[in-house]
This record gives sequence, structure tokens and C-alpha cells, in this order.
Amino acid sequence: MNDVPQKPEQAHPTLEWIGETDGYLRLIDQTKLPGQLVYLDCRDVQSVWDAIKRLSVRGAPAIGVAAAYGCVIAAQHGNFARGADYLATSRPTAVNLFWAIARMKSLQTTETTALLAEARRIHAEDAAMCRAIGQHAMKLIEPNAGVLTHCNAGALATSGIGTATAGMYLAHAAGTPFTVYADETRPLLQGARLTAWELGEAGVDVKLICDSMAAQLMHGKKINIVITGADRIAANGDVANKVGTYSVAIAAKYHHIPFYVAAPSSTFDIKCPTGDDIPIEQRNPSEVSNFSDTATAPPGTQVENPAFDVTPASLITGIITEHGLIQPVNKETVSRTIR
Amino acid sequence: MNDVPQKPEQAHPTLEWIGETDGYLRLIDQTKLPGQLVYLDCRDVQSVWDAIKRLSVRGAPAIGVAAAYGCVIAAQHGNFARGADYLATSRPTAVNLFWAIARMKSLQTTETTALLAEARRIHAEDAAMCRAIGQHAMKLIEPNAGVLTHCNAGALATSGIGTATAGMYLAHAAGTPFTVYADETRPLLQGARLTAWELGEAGVDVKLICDSMAAQLMHGKKINIVITGADRIAANGDVANKVGTYSVAIAAKYHHIPFYVAAPSSTFDIKCPTGDDIPIEQRNPSEVSNFSDTATAPPGTQVENPAFDVTPASLITGIITEHGLIQPVNKETVSRTIR
Repeated sequence: MNDVPQKPEQAHPTLEWIGETDGYLRLIDQTKLPGQLVYLDCRDVQSVWDAIKRLSVRGAPAIGVAAAYGCVIAAQHGNFARGADYLATSRPTAVNLFWAIARMKSLQTTETTALLAEARRIHAEDAAMCRAIGQHAMKLIEPNAGVLTHCNAGALATSGIGTATAGMYLAHAAGTPFTVYADETRPLLQGARLTAWELGEAGVDVKLICDSMAAQLMHGKKINIVITGADRIAANGDVANKVGTYSVAIAAKYHHIPFYVAAPSSTFDIKCPTGDDIPIEQRNPSEVSNFSDTATAPPGTQVENPAFDVTPASLITGIITEHGLIQPVNKETVSRTIR
Repeated sequence: MNDVPQKPEQAHPTLEWIGETDGYLRLIDQTKLPGQLVYLDCRDVQSVWDAIKRLSVRGAPAIGVAAAYGCVIAAQHGNFARGADYLATSRPTAVNLFWAIARMKSLQTTETTALLAEARRIHAEDAAMCRAIGQHAMKLIEPNAGVLTHCNAGALATSGIGTATAGMYLAHAAGTPFTVYADETRPLLQGARLTAWELGEAGVDVKLICDSMAAQLMHGKKINIVITGADRIAANGDVANKVGTYSVAIAAKYHHIPFYVAAPSSTFDIKCPTGDDIPIEQRNPSEVSNFSDTATAPPGTQVENPAFDVTPASLITGIITEHGLIQPVNKETVSRTIR
């Protein structure tokens, strides 16, 4: 597991370490997608912090890997401990961020060779995790299925083939015909900008819809399965994910369509008993009242902008982890897989 | 009913006739909202035709009233018959347009005094219909309620205080404190551009949300009632309305929140047995793959873009018409009110 694994099915690597101990972190600037494919080269801690904060790199696993490499960069500049702590302040709800930084710190060294080796292990493990999830998830995608996903739990959210998308990439590589319906995912449009882009680049048949259209497509029998990612999963299986996931889950339940969450075991926060204990980040109102630099609402319009919502375990058919499928989803089945 | 009724509660009249038989039609150019409040003064048939065609005036009731005044303008220029026929070509699917023009023609006169009196009756009847709906709907808005609405079935869609908004305007005028949560309503953002604007201008406490956030706010107990408009209602009470309405209705049912539809009796299509018999218009893909005028998805992305969806009667608590409340909603209760 010391090397980054085999060439992934996605078209463009989300992030990679260029060079050796004196190298740097290169990542796709996801704020520029889908208009431009631009790479950011991060050579100091501030640029890694900025990339995480500004969502140039986003998605829990990718943030974790980026932060691990960020710790290497901190060590290059002789300020490992302070740099690591600073990186942890970039996204308040990103559990993988804290996890990756804690793991780098647990080496109890500031030596770049050892730190880079550990960051590469984190990277390789992440890619392997995606692939393992994909091997379980691809079995759920039947020929000619309509697969709905929300937001981007894709290759762009990981350093591998994604979590929610992993089964899609592997099913596509295996020649299974299917269509992905990608919710555009307001307010930041990760579905339109990222999921439609990365699946399209890989040759997967993908159709973009507005978030409000998913229920109508379910009624029209176009959706056979829903697969989303997760930002954080409580001990009882409640899932915090991008706002809108909950709405999709309710609609799936109403239409008797299976709703799966694909997420690595690191996404589980076993100390968090239920979804009600997960704090919901409120983001900047301008994300809702504007698009790019264009105001869509009158100046001064009040806004609610919860970044996440919580889907209760009762709406979730199964959770696909790298260890297999948790189904049904409850405190007992979660505790059997996640320790 | 010969005069335009009392000063409406909305801040800016959507359209009004300025002067007497030698007067003209003034209307808000809704294509400029919410950035600018610009009035269009229409003194010839072509400018009325353009206003309808370019969606400067939109909403079935408002289009009907604009076309009626357009017929008066045609008569001022001595070309009533040709002008009326020309106006009917401005929006090929607008039922209220044909209805209003046919009613003007049925007078069998080209005399401006008689035509203006009829146009004012159509205007006054529309405004009175809104007010009657509002008087029934305002009783449903409890002090400190959170009221969710989708799209714009507002004053801007009528020549009065709107349909879904009518109860909100009257409850506000009566001093009831409440908050309206306005879904932005992708893809065309009528909620952000129009509903947030008109309610805000009238001093109603309004908060804008993305469509995908409604379920999360319901879970958080911020929504006590949902009121939307309708484009067409089948004999069994199934409601076709702006896409996303169905999703809101499913989420409301899941959270045991009452879901009301406010619509004039003219919206019922009794020849249409159920919602499955209502054809769903597919609109231009660029509405989904763009946000305002900015591309959000990769070039060539495939899109689904149903303009409407159908909410089954089983999800609807009641339908508020100018004649009162239809509750519960089914074929029998609909047929008792609508003939």
C-alpha cells in the first residue's frame, strides 16, 4: 500500500504529490470547473489552507489527503506542529481533516521522509477504500438502471474513484449500461459543475437535473436506485450530507426506491449517538442570493443556508463501506461493522 | 365590480390602466426584476404583444387582463379586430389570453368606452378573485407561522394580490406576524426574482431558500404550512404546478405539515380525470445547464427539464379557491365546488 494504486477509471486525478520530499501538492482547482481544468500547485501551508477553505479541494476524503500532504509541506518549512494545527482550522465540520492531521501527528516526527511516506499511505488507502466501496456498490447497479446521485461524492471528492461514484465507474468499466441522473445541487452546484463533468469525462451516460426534479423522475420510473455520499454518520446510522440529500431520501422512500449511502468507515463518528447531535454549518447567505457575481434575489434578501442536512437511518436502505454493506441500518448493524 | 377595487396590499401594481378611454396600459417589466423596477407604458398593440411575448408580464391571470386592455388600445387605433387576433398570437399556450380576448370580442363593438369598461371588469374580477382566495387563506396562517411557498403565484402573476400569496398579504395587513420561506425555484428562479421581491417590497418577512432546503427546515420545525399555486387541477384534485411542488408536498406529508394549493376555480380542468392525463411540457435544456446567463455544466451535458410536476390529491390538505376551501381533496369534494 506504499504506492498510489493502479490508474483510476476517472479521467483526471483530483490531487497528486509531485516529486519527492522536496515536492509539492498539485490539485484540480474545483472552483474553476467545469469551465476550465486548472491545477493549483501548493508549496506552502497557507495555499493548502486556502484550497480547503475556498473549496478548491473538497469532499471529506480528498480534504484528508490534502491535509496530510499539507503537513508534509509544513515540515518542509520547519513548522510541522503549528502548520498542522492551522490546517485543522480550515473546515469546521470536516472529520477527515482532523483524522488525517491526527494521524500525521501520531508519527511523532517532523522528518519529511517519514511524513511523506505516511501521507502517501493515507492517499493509497483512500484510493483503495474507494475501489473496495465500488466493488460492493457495482453489484447494486442493474443493467439499464437509472441511478440518482446528489452533490459530488465523486472522484473529485476523494483521491480515488469516489465513494458514491465508485460503483458507477466500476460498473461502467465492466460494460454495464446505465444512466446517472445528477442533481445540480444548489447552492454551489457541485452536481452540475463536478459530477456531470467527471462522469461525462469518463464516458458515463449522465443527465443533469435540478434538485427539485428528482421526485418527478422517480414518479416517472426513471430512477431505480439512489446512491449519495456522506459527510458524517452517527452511531445509529443517521447520515449528515449535503443539503438536499434528506429531501431525496424522503422522495425515494415515498416511491419505494432503494436509497444507499456510500462512505468509508472513517466517515462514522461513533461518539455521535444520533443525527440530532451533528452540528449543521450555516454558510454565507450570498451563496443562495447570488450565482457567480450575479444577484438572483433583491439586495438585502434574508436567506437560510444550511450546508448539510441529516437523513435518518430509517430512510436509508443500506450504507456501503469499504468493508461491505450495512443493511438494514441501525445502531446494532453499524456497531458490528464500525468499531 | 365596475371599478378596479380598493388599493391592493402589494407595494406595486403589476399592471394598471392610466387615464380614461384615451389612456394606456402601464405594467411592471418583470424581466428587469429584481434588479430594477421599470414600468412599461404600452400605447400600441405591438408593445402589449411584445410585453406578453417577452414575459414582461406573466402568470395566466395577469396575461388575460393585459390582453383585455390591449384590445382597448387596438380599438383606440381603429383596428380592434386585427389587433385582438394579433394579441392572441403572443403566447400560444396561454388559455387566459384566448379567454380574455374572446370575452372582449363577444361585446361585438369597437367602441372604446364599452371595451374599456369590459377590460376594467375583467381586471376587477381578477383582483376580487385574488382577494376572495386571500380571505379564506389568511385564516390558515397562524401567528408566528412559517409559511413555505414555491415559484411565484403572487401579485406579479395576477392583477390583484396573487393566489398563493393572497392570504399572506391579507394576514400581513391584519397585523399577523409570520415568516414566508420562498423556494428559489430552479431553473427560472421565480421564487428568488419575483416572490422574494414582491413580498419584501410589501414588508412581509421573507426568507429565501434553495429548493433542496425545504425538507431540512421542515425537520427543524420552521415550516408550519405550505401554500403553492397551481397551473392546472384535474377533476380528482391532482395538481399540476411548477416542477418541485411535488417534492415539497412529499416532504410536507412526511413531516405532517399541511400542504395547501391556492387557485381560482378557472384553474380546474374537469375534463381531465387525473393528474396522469395532464401533459408535462419539457422546456429548453439550457435553463438547467445555465444559471441566469452563466453555464453551470460542461458544454453538451444532457438534461431533463420538465416544467411542471403533478402532486396527487392524496398529498394535498386542501385547495383554496375564491369559493372557499376544498378539504379533503378528492373527486367528490372537487365536483361539489367546481362545475
